Amino acid sequence: MKRVVIALGGNAILQRGQRGTYEEQRENVMETAGQIVDMIERGYEVVITHGNGPQVGALLLHMDAGQQLYDIPAQPMDVAGAMTQGQIGYMIQQALINELRKRGIERPVATIVTQTVVDKDDPAFQHPSKPVGPFYDEETAKKLAEEKGWTVVEDAGRGWRRVVPSPDPRCHVEAPVLVNLVEKGFIVIASGGGGVPVIEEDGQLKGVEAVIDKDLAGERLAEEVKADIFMILTDVNGAAVNYGKENERWLERVTVNELKRYYDEGHFKRGSMGPKVLAAMRFVEWGGERAVIAVLDRAVEALEGKTGTQVVG
Amino acid sequence: MKRVVIALGGNAILQRGQRGTYEEQRENVMETAGQIVDMIERGYEVVITHGNGPQVGALLLHMDAGQQLYDIPAQPMDVAGAMTQGQIGYMIQQALINELRKRGIERPVATIVTQTVVDKDDPAFQHPSKPVGPFYDEETAKKLAEEKGWTVVEDAGRGWRRVVPSPDPRCHVEAPVLVNLVEKGFIVIASGGGGVPVIEEDGQLKGVEAVIDKDLAGERLAEEVKADIFMILTDVNGAAVNYGKENERWLERVTVNELKRYYDEGHFKRGSMGPKVLAAMRFVEWGGERAVIAVLDRAVEALEGKTGTQVVG
Repeated sequence: MKRVVIALGGNAILQRGQRGTYEEQRENVMETAGQIVDMIERGYEVVITHGNGPQVGALLLHMDAGQQLYDIPAQPMDVAGAMTQGQIGYMIQQALINELRKRGIERPVATIVTQTVVDKDDPAFQHPSKPVGPFYDEETAKKLAEEKGWTVVEDAGRGWRRVVPSPDPRCHVEAPVLVNLVEKGFIVIASGGGGVPVIEEDGQLKGVEAVIDKDLAGERLAEEVKADIFMILTDVNGAAVNYGKENERWLERVTVNELKRYYDEGHFKRGSMGPKVLAAMRFVEWGGERAVIAVLDRAVEALEGKTGTQVVG
Repeated sequence: MKRVVIALGGNAILQRGQRGTYEEQRENVMETAGQIVDMIERGYEVVITHGNGPQVGALLLHMDAGQQLYDIPAQPMDVAGAMTQGQIGYMIQQALINELRKRGIERPVATIVTQTVVDKDDPAFQHPSKPVGPFYDEETAKKLAEEKGWTVVEDAGRGWRRVVPSPDPRCHVEAPVLVNLVEKGFIVIASGGGGVPVIEEDGQLKGVEAVIDKDLAGERLAEEVKADIFMILTDVNGAAVNYGKENERWLERVTVNELKRYYDEGHFKRGSMGPKVLAAMRFVEWGGERAVIAVLDRAVEALEGKTGTQVVG
């Protein structure tokens, strides 16, 4: 039986243009659960991870507003990340259980609140780059930067925003738990939003205000559970060279070496397709059989190697 | 080795009069972790559950403010409950790992996002009683009641508030996962805030807007993991008859039968000591060796039977 780690993109939970109501998210998640159970029925053992961009964004704004309106303290970003793991994990696990039951399958599903270790000397800490939270006017932004030690940047015409580091994930603190559950045949949801970023200082874990790329964290997860296949599901059906240009070419079956060349040539956008390609390459280089980048609604076909970008050794 | 389920009261995370900052909660949780690791060092196998009252209250207000100020949809109560499981679970698991490491113990700790099944015909659904979320003026409250189907009540002088049902917990959907991890010797945090309340309709799980008493849910957890001891830690050192009166008497060692008599006589306050006593009685009636109600900072003594209320068969 092949074991596959599935990294769900934001569109598996909330689609572009949607407002983020519970009903919208529930419907999307139910559809995603249908895809995942299709894979389970075909005999794959699945482990699930997911993004949390829109959800953590909404939560940071909620907390900002709550602090303004009701003077209730906002929680830091590591805690906010853990909160979205509960939120999204709950929705996915419930939808999966329901879809499994509809098809007569009774299989335990569990969301594990996951911490992801990053290196405290990661150069990303010197170069915060990921915008998070509300937009501010210049004066407020600079005041907050001074008060809270934030880095703020101007976001082309839309105002000022806080930026946080995006360090490289090393491993998951909860790996032994995940491995145990996966080996028991349970369906595990873990490392949501890339996991809560923590550093180690004198052996002590400490949450940091940062965000971790969920595909890079998903790749570490795939190594930890010794997956055969690592699959990144997103809103485009794979990676393309010369993306958006006249000579655009979608990659089908591609070796790590060939892909690395394209990567070094700058074909893949930073913070978008770039980390997905990097995660796929890392997985195959580690010894994984195959990494797949594909569009969510063709997930089963892609898993069977029939569509999307298939990265091999 | 004795297995103990510990139900942490709100004061383990946030103390009365505190505002709810991360720093306050972190400090409290670190102290609580010290107590728990003391038990682990004495050879007890621990499973942890916890309340979420102040945290879910803050979150509902944050979301209410975010909807008003930024027009970002609030999430329903079941989702909010799952979010606080992530929040509090993360804080407890990190503090436990750190405290264990300080003492040279390396033991996996995991928070499991937990759904608690309640009966859809539970009479509580006809009598919503638990106030949640912001206070409103009468007009707004009645408008919300009409728009959203809420039940609202006047809260003595402080304004109007939504009330939700508090149904009796039956079991945890994730019980097989919890049992597996506990039997592996892992430290599990589960059923936070009493778990996310779900009903079953045609075999499908559905989140409901309700709150579950965390001690009653903790008792179900104690049955599921076949605990020897069920311990409720709170801000008073046990249960008392004639509480607050001149003839007040704190209960030390007490049998279920004796305790049941006091319970029926109305000695224990509804929504406060009442459900704790009920949970303790249920556990011993189920076959548990002993249930303990005690004050948080004397947890280890209480576990050894030296203080607090000890309920036996």
